Amino acid sequence: MDALIEKARVLVEALPYISKFRGRALVIKVGGRAMDEPAMREKLAEDLILLRWVGIDVVVVHGGGLQIGEMLSRLGILSRFAGGMRITDEPTMHVVEMVLGGAVNKELVRVIQGKGGRAVGLTGKDGGLALAKRLSSVGTEGVDPGLVGDVIRVDPTVLKRLAGEFIPVIAPIAVDEQGTTLNVNADPFAAKLAVALGAEKLVLLTDVQGVKDREGILIPTLHAQHARGLIASGIITGGMIPKVEYALSALHEGVAKVHIIDGRLEHALLLEIFTDRGVGTELVA
Amino acid sequence: MDALIEKARVLVEALPYISKFRGRALVIKVGGRAMDEPAMREKLAEDLILLRWVGIDVVVVHGGGLQIGEMLSRLGILSRFAGGMRITDEPTMHVVEMVLGGAVNKELVRVIQGKGGRAVGLTGKDGGLALAKRLSSVGTEGVDPGLVGDVIRVDPTVLKRLAGEFIPVIAPIAVDEQGTTLNVNADPFAAKLAVALGAEKLVLLTDVQGVKDREGILIPTLHAQHARGLIASGIITGGMIPKVEYALSALHEGVAKVHIIDGRLEHALLLEIFTDRGVGTELVA
Amino acid sequence: MDALIEKARVLVEALPYISKFRGRALVIKVGGRAMDEPAMREKLAEDLILLRWVGIDVVVVHGGGLQIGEMLSRLGILSRFAGGMRITDEPTMHVVEMVLGGAVNKELVRVIQGKGGRAVGLTGKDGGLALAKRLSSVGTEGVDPGLVGDVIRVDPTVLKRLAGEFIPVIAPIAVDEQGTTLNVNADPFAAKLAVALGAEKLVLLTDVQGVKDREGILIPTLHAQHARGLIASGIITGGMIPKVEYALSALHEGVAKVHIIDGRLEHALLLEIFTDRGVGTELVA
Amino acid sequence: MDALIEKARVLVEALPYISKFRGRALVIKVGGRAMDEPAMREKLAEDLILLRWVGIDVVVVHGGGLQIGEMLSRLGILSRFAGGMRITDEPTMHVVEMVLGGAVNKELVRVIQGKGGRAVGLTGKDGGLALAKRLSSVGTEGVDPGLVGDVIRVDPTVLKRLAGEFIPVIAPIAVDEQGTTLNVNADPFAAKLAVALGAEKLVLLTDVQGVKDREGILIPTLHAQHARGLIASGIITGGMIPKVEYALSALHEGVAKVHIIDGRLEHALLLEIFTDRGVGTELVA
Amino acid sequence: MDALIEKARVLVEALPYISKFRGRALVIKVGGRAMDEPAMREKLAEDLILLRWVGIDVVVVHGGGLQIGEMLSRLGILSRFAGGMRITDEPTMHVVEMVLGGAVNKELVRVIQGKGGRAVGLTGKDGGLALAKRLSSVGTEGVDPGLVGDVIRVDPTVLKRLAGEFIPVIAPIAVDEQGTTLNVNADPFAAKLAVALGAEKLVLLTDVQGVKDREGILIPTLHAQHARGLIASGIITGGMIPKVEYALSALHEGVAKVHIIDGRLEHALLLEIFTDRGVGTELVA
Amino acid sequence: MDALIEKARVLVEALPYISKFRGRALVIKVGGRAMDEPAMREKLAEDLILLRWVGIDVVVVHGGGLQIGEMLSRLGILSRFAGGMRITDEPTMHVVEMVLGGAVNKELVRVIQGKGGRAVGLTGKDGGLALAKRLSSVGTEGVDPGLVGDVIRVDPTVLKRLAGEFIPVIAPIAVDEQGTTLNVNADPFAAKLAVALGAEKLVLLTDVQGVKDREGILIPTLHAQHARGLIASGIITGGMIPKVEYALSALHEGVAKVHIIDGRLEHALLLEIFTDRGVGTELVA
Repeated sequence: MDALIEKARVLVEALPYISKFRGRALVIKVGGRAMDEPAMREKLAEDLILLRWVGIDVVVVHGGGLQIGEMLSRLGILSRFAGGMRITDEPTMHVVEMVLGGAVNKELVRVIQGKGGRAVGLTGKDGGLALAKRLSSVGTEGVDPGLVGDVIRVDPTVLKRLAGEFIPVIAPIAVDEQGTTLNVNADPFAAKLAVALGAEKLVLLTDVQGVKDREGILIPTLHAQHARGLIASGIITGGMIPKVEYALSALHEGVAKVHIIDGRLEHALLLEIFTDRGVGTELVA
Repeated sequence: MDALIEKARVLVEALPYISKFRGRALVIKVGGRAMDEPAMREKLAEDLILLRWVGIDVVVVHGGGLQIGEMLSRLGILSRFAGGMRITDEPTMHVVEMVLGGAVNKELVRVIQGKGGRAVGLTGKDGGLALAKRLSSVGTEGVDPGLVGDVIRVDPTVLKRLAGEFIPVIAPIAVDEQGTTLNVNADPFAAKLAVALGAEKLVLLTDVQGVKDREGILIPTLHAQHARGLIASGIITGGMIPKVEYALSALHEGVAKVHIIDGRLEHALLLEIFTDRGVGTELVA
Repeated sequence: MDALIEKARVLVEALPYISKFRGRALVIKVGGRAMDEPAMREKLAEDLILLRWVGIDVVVVHGGGLQIGEMLSRLGILSRFAGGMRITDEPTMHVVEMVLGGAVNKELVRVIQGKGGRAVGLTGKDGGLALAKRLSSVGTEGVDPGLVGDVIRVDPTVLKRLAGEFIPVIAPIAVDEQGTTLNVNADPFAAKLAVALGAEKLVLLTDVQGVKDREGILIPTLHAQHARGLIASGIITGGMIPKVEYALSALHEGVAKVHIIDGRLEHALLLEIFTDRGVGTELVA
Repeated sequence: MDALIEKARVLVEALPYISKFRGRALVIKVGGRAMDEPAMREKLAEDLILLRWVGIDVVVVHGGGLQIGEMLSRLGILSRFAGGMRITDEPTMHVVEMVLGGAVNKELVRVIQGKGGRAVGLTGKDGGLALAKRLSSVGTEGVDPGLVGDVIRVDPTVLKRLAGEFIPVIAPIAVDEQGTTLNVNADPFAAKLAVALGAEKLVLLTDVQGVKDREGILIPTLHAQHARGLIASGIITGGMIPKVEYALSALHEGVAKVHIIDGRLEHALLLEIFTDRGVGTELVA
Repeated sequence: MDALIEKARVLVEALPYISKFRGRALVIKVGGRAMDEPAMREKLAEDLILLRWVGIDVVVVHGGGLQIGEMLSRLGILSRFAGGMRITDEPTMHVVEMVLGGAVNKELVRVIQGKGGRAVGLTGKDGGLALAKRLSSVGTEGVDPGLVGDVIRVDPTVLKRLAGEFIPVIAPIAVDEQGTTLNVNADPFAAKLAVALGAEKLVLLTDVQGVKDREGILIPTLHAQHARGLIASGIITGGMIPKVEYALSALHEGVAKVHIIDGRLEHALLLEIFTDRGVGTELVA
Repeated sequence: MDALIEKARVLVEALPYISKFRGRALVIKVGGRAMDEPAMREKLAEDLILLRWVGIDVVVVHGGGLQIGEMLSRLGILSRFAGGMRITDEPTMHVVEMVLGGAVNKELVRVIQGKGGRAVGLTGKDGGLALAKRLSSVGTEGVDPGLVGDVIRVDPTVLKRLAGEFIPVIAPIAVDEQGTTLNVNADPFAAKLAVALGAEKLVLLTDVQGVKDREGILIPTLHAQHARGLIASGIITGGMIPKVEYALSALHEGVAKVHIIDGRLEHALLLEIFTDRGVGTELVA
């Protein structure tokens, strides 16, 4: 019985956090192990359902690089990258859309539904949710990335229709004004959604601990200006640079906080939202 | 960090229970130590808020015998009882209403609000919520209990107006057709509300462990017919007899389950709703 | 039959006044004989119901000094005042809340319901309606009044939920940020509500005829500047000073008119709202 | 001031009647002097507005025989009648529609709006409100009445759209399945509307005192069976026969009460609804 | 079958136009042959229904000069005009209202209903839709036109109640502040409605091709400034001058486009809205 | 201009059909060339948008056999069939879901959005739309089809949320009670949806003309009993047998009409809905 009471105490400890976020939008970019490993995916689904059921308007954006790469390889299509973006020709785009929108997306929906939640899987195409424009070049050498785009307008109508009951799970694919399907990086896609929805937080679930300082120690809270300095001085490097830049851009456009957290931790999302001890780096303006 | 993860696990363990009760009405009669002791009252408030925030339509009915007795004594008014009911003359009724509706009720509201919830305190008078008729006699000797009544009609309009957001906290006072204020026992008041609201459960928070068998061992689940037998054979005795009878009546009128649980346990309510191991006796039809 | 026709004529004479106030909020502070005497209270209830039923959003705030004093005296607690405010220690506050929220409030509700209206009794605690802060000192000598406060924020959500159907009857009790229960004077409590609700009128029912001039003649209409002059020149004196000051403050914050009327007149409220001849003093900006 | 208080008393005397009819539909057929004389029409408008503003769903059906006859005469078209119905050829129908729908209807609307109410004038054509079928013969001699019909279906959609705010004022004109415009007697038109709306009452405003007995004394309350007897025995005669028959038919189809009242009395409608002393004959099932 | 496919192609050609106007208000002044000839009226009704059913908020204002003139003549009342306006004394006003509101209006309603649409006929009196003030003089010689007015305020409440389902058909009659019924020219009445409703377009159906240039050639698109020039230089003459002036005024007050189109063409309205080739003159700011 | 008028005539010819189906649900199974060929797909999208915009609640279910077969072949997975169903092992199911939900579904959405409509692509998994159970055997020889299911319950909540604005486009994939993803034939999936939505019509777009009689002549209207006879007597053969059986089952469960039409005809859907001459076989109970 004491163990049970201890459990009840844990439940009520969440109250102040629930109070803070009820009725607010939370955009969560899920990727990496949290999404790719079945057992972790179930934990993630539980976290999402719990957030939804305590009244937080959770919106999920997912990546799927692993699954895309695997399918491209099975089909004998070469994967090429520039500046961290997949160079996307037409056959590749077809596979990207099929894998993200048909496999990864619906698998997340299935797991959430299986855990008792209600989820609806969408892409940026559905209901005209995301309009994009093609990137002319990526990377330092200015390579044409092909069918790769950036979200330039969000129409949240379809999300509003689903609100309050369903968790929208969104694959980062969009069309441009000409109706051409474009591949969009999940991080900036999520950032743009967070801005459009006036989200309280944008959370990026990753496979790293967070942003680290010169000594390799995790930085729990990072101010925008400091973050810019860390990039300039080469302490933030590699794939973390664009993540931090998307985060800074979201902060600049009005999102209050962006979290880069370690999705390899079980229930990382709950720990981040429902405890005082964060589980990664929190970026603030 | 492991401790935190353990906490997160506890949170998600609640999911199947939340799923089961979301959108359902739960009428909770609070009394005894759970309500009377400030520290316990805060725990109770936390439980109520959590239930409300995960989407359960919690309705609270409270007693207040202790506080009434104390105030009557301060005012030099003698407390008399018959058949477990307070014999209520006019001066007593005035004090009962003042204490229940003005002190106990608003204190519960204050604690819930202080913990971040939203509560509205009412009596059966407000919005014509409860119409009663006078009991002509109580107890085995048929004593006239004075201004004591039984709820004969519930108008849930005011509760519906508050639904979804506020926790209604109700003092068991009603008027009869003539507009006379009547004192109603909180247990049957809660039972009548549970029936009127089509509640999924009626929970009676008490200062005992639950219903016990001949050997004094707690009975976790008790069928209506068995309960009647235990009363007939004198195993259920004293103040537990009317409690069980109100429970049986609620079951008979369509409430699925009635729980008589031990409010002296911290977070008893959460333990009952959110774990498989109940914390008292569950009565079923 | 002629008498009946005459009555019908009276009914239709109200049309232009109904037309003017339909759909507007009217905050009415009731106190004194209009509330304390049972026969007058019934007349008051009729007035309130009629206003509610012709579509005016009536909100009632009540005092209860008489009943508080009486109960304190019965309990052997000394009543002390400074600057017109009751000095309120903890035992006093307990009694104030019990009497206002449990006795006076519910009695008004009972009478309105008995006359066929629908009323819900609240205090400033319910639904977080009124947040207050403690007054550090009152009166010219700067006495610490104890648990006495001033409303600093109104959350009208609970009133909106009840709107259109129920008459909210509100006891002027509030909590501060720390959750401490505070005693608030009914006049400024009503004034703050009127401002928060964008009320068309604030009506203060009193036991005097209204504001009088140097010759003791009732002033039917009083402009803010003139009122300030009357205070400065000592013509407005005693308990009328704070009343006029609350009125001026409400006018300043956007309430169009404040009426100080004579509640000792039968149906004073209807006379004020439904005839051209007011029954007291009307203050305008 | 005493006179004013007396007036206020009259207002509150209406409360029990308001309480009884709030939210209920009341279909009122207006005709005769109450409608034809400008001064009486203003009084009628006041009655209608007051009923609407205290929450009664007033629906008005009007006749206009006088005005039709006058216009036909100015145009040199002969008025012919059979069995109390106007024999309606095409030129007559054109005039009937023009006078009822364009002149009488809009004049009632104008007066109600002028008195501060909100009215919308319609005919049975508008929004497909009333579908009729042609009467093949009228009167004892079975004359073909031409373009005269009986309402066979009511579509209350347009009335529902206007409900709660506007007083619908309806000219008794309808179309049949072929789209032919038909003249309908206002009494049965109102009776059919009352049935379709589940009206609490149907009131027929006439230029007589009500139904009288053998001695010529007004019968205040008349049961259906008794009414049939009075027709059979020739005590009810002439134009009162069809009125009573329409009333009986409305009672039979579920309208609780039908009133045949004397519209020549000022404020007859208010007297009927808001006093215990009726002003004509009340027919009950 | 090929013919059918061709028909289907025509249907889908309308899609871009539907897309453009869905959910927007369109005020259409109908007059002349389109309204006066039964066969043309049926075509007009079909156009209106189609526009309504594809989601365009169609509002119809109609004239009726022909029918008014005819009825006045039958009644021996002389028609007089000044500056294009009918000089309207009381007997004339009575006829104007009867004919417009009772005959022409209800005939349009009947035809729309008969074609399967849903229409409600109103005048500016109904629901206080249009408030007017009397014109003191009209024409170059400043003749007093009598009961002739100009709309100075529109209350669209009644139109909002009917929106989405019903086509409002409005006769251009209004009252002034004194409740006097006034005759309003249908063109400026429609223009004022278009402004008040924030209409996308105002369409004036006439019996001419549109506005023509010096050579008598139809001008498809006419800018406001150019239009003013054409009036100044005497190229626009006669009855077209006020039409163009009302159009300019509507453009000035925010209506995006005004169309003066040839109602003698079958389905002129559909051609205008649903094809690229307009059927008259389009005026733009 | 005459050509334009002719076009307008075609538009209004659709009115009676619009009138008949407005506000009713229409479930359309699209497959074959209508969906597979880009030009035909655009025409189909136009038809769907037009139906949606005139107020018909269009719901689309699509197949995708061709695309699935192609992708399986590219991945070196063998396609096997039994009783017309694809034998679906896990690797096949993965491909089916990816192709249907990610490629075919989103392509239809893209085309509808590109034509100006609003579409949302879903599978039976989304929002728990379709619950299925595994088929134990298919075909005459009772082969185990693997991960193939039949819809046993439809939860239309997500469709209701999207109604009125969006065209739902649904890939026929579902989960069973254990959360296993199952492949469902699009025809019975559409039939079950039609029943659950109380659809007015179920339309199956195919690559054949419809059902033919012994002489190979198209049967325009086929009664259920006659259809059963044609199957029994071997006149309906091959893939048409299950189609007709699904149709009969939908008729039996309350769908009024099922149409098997020739999707190879341009705008076949519009021809079926908006003309008297059907374009295939209509099955009625």
